[in-house]
Amino acid sequence: MSNIENELLPSERLDDLLTHQLRIIQSREVFSFSMDAVLLARFAGVPRYGRIADLCTGNGVIPLLLTTRTQAKIDAVEIQPRLADMARRSVRLNGLEERITIVEGDLRDYPKTAGYGVYDAITVNPPYMQGNSGDTNENPYYAMARHEMHGTLEQIVEACARLVRTGGKVAMVHRPERLADIIVSMRKWKLEPKRLRFVHPYAEAGANMVLIEAVRDGKPAVKVLPPLIVYNKDRRYERELMEIYYGPETGNDS
Amino acid sequence: MSNIENELLPSERLDDLLTHQLRIIQSREVFSFSMDAVLLARFAGVPRYGRIADLCTGNGVIPLLLTTRTQAKIDAVEIQPRLADMARRSVRLNGLEERITIVEGDLRDYPKTAGYGVYDAITVNPPYMQGNSGDTNENPYYAMARHEMHGTLEQIVEACARLVRTGGKVAMVHRPERLADIIVSMRKWKLEPKRLRFVHPYAEAGANMVLIEAVRDGKPAVKVLPPLIVYNKDRRYERELMEIYYGPETGNDS
Repeated sequence: MSNIENELLPSERLDDLLTHQLRIIQSREVFSFSMDAVLLARFAGVPRYGRIADLCTGNGVIPLLLTTRTQAKIDAVEIQPRLADMARRSVRLNGLEERITIVEGDLRDYPKTAGYGVYDAITVNPPYMQGNSGDTNENPYYAMARHEMHGTLEQIVEACARLVRTGGKVAMVHRPERLADIIVSMRKWKLEPKRLRFVHPYAEAGANMVLIEAVRDGKPAVKVLPPLIVYNKDRRYERELMEIYYGPETGNDS
Repeated sequence: MSNIENELLPSERLDDLLTHQLRIIQSREVFSFSMDAVLLARFAGVPRYGRIADLCTGNGVIPLLLTTRTQAKIDAVEIQPRLADMARRSVRLNGLEERITIVEGDLRDYPKTAGYGVYDAITVNPPYMQGNSGDTNENPYYAMARHEMHGTLEQIVEACARLVRTGGKVAMVHRPERLADIIVSMRKWKLEPKRLRFVHPYAEAGANMVLIEAVRDGKPAVKVLPPLIVYNKDRRYERELMEIYYGPETGNDS
């Protein structure tokens, strides 16, 4: 513990993932995970054993959370060396080196090195913004995590389709604005959308997030799950969100 | 009134549409409208003036309801002569012959006769079931209204795309199971999905209906509206449903 804390770089902090005593290195200047990643890690259909890939892993929050749901080996790919290093240290900090491998690299090249159809499931929380860059004043770490600077949505879908086996699952979180693009790309790359869940900040608000799971070479038939509402009328987390963050035993949303 | 009632055929009845004193001829043996049509007539973006086409109009419930929201001229297409006749009599019954024209025919041929790009908006409540027929014991009127016997989903989307002008809107209601098929067909035919609303029987249930609006040659950007919940915990209509059916002044959902 003290060793790890000595290893923290300037601006880094150690956060508690609030489940299974998992901890994660974060940095306001470099990368902090968002609710999107937590919801995806809960939403994704994962095999009990086998192999999972997490693309655009950032500081590795999704593979860390997935270890509470599966014994599968997880390869997590991140293009930014600084973030891959944070993720690698978080894996070590949690003693999960046997279960999670952090791969520094470009997901577009990854199928060539990892192999085609070798994963049972894929998770991906891609950059949401189209175009090469946004505000030029933006912190470069965040700019790369948020903008499609190293791969368009379709290239990401293509990589997922190449990596996953027939019948394997690909789960993505994205903005609803891109829903048509996601579905059209998935269909093109033989990832059939099967399960969708929309996240609404309030019951009366439009969705600001979509969770979508596709099956490689699956039969067309979409299931739209109940809406996931984040806040109740009192601006507190809804029960389901409380349970996702803190486990079912708390649920003090009343 | 007595004239019209004398005109009713065996099994037909006269129902109240509960708004603007509209009435409609229905028949349990031939066709009765469902909540889907009512929600679509409320959801669809319609111009104040201009031209609207309603495809698969059945007994004409959607054009009748649309007259409460627009002064546009509405052409309503139905392939079944028995239903087109019911719709035509309902239009006459409400004195709306100047605003609604019932066209008996196949929507696949309709762009050739009506013209390309001549409508400002289209509504369509297509058959939900894939394949040529279902249960052979099914009533033939219902079988045709429910199964894609005279046009696949893609052929319906194609007809909409041909009929509507650039920038015009196409609104459809369908089952969420077909969402990927709908979006892929729409994109293919240059109808860009812009506005989606999912209908859930209860807040905790998956969606059993989707309302989707596309814009001809629109820019990709989907907006997912708040979920539309039909029943509250007491198994009574939620306020919004009450308002859709009975108008905002009632709203006795407590």
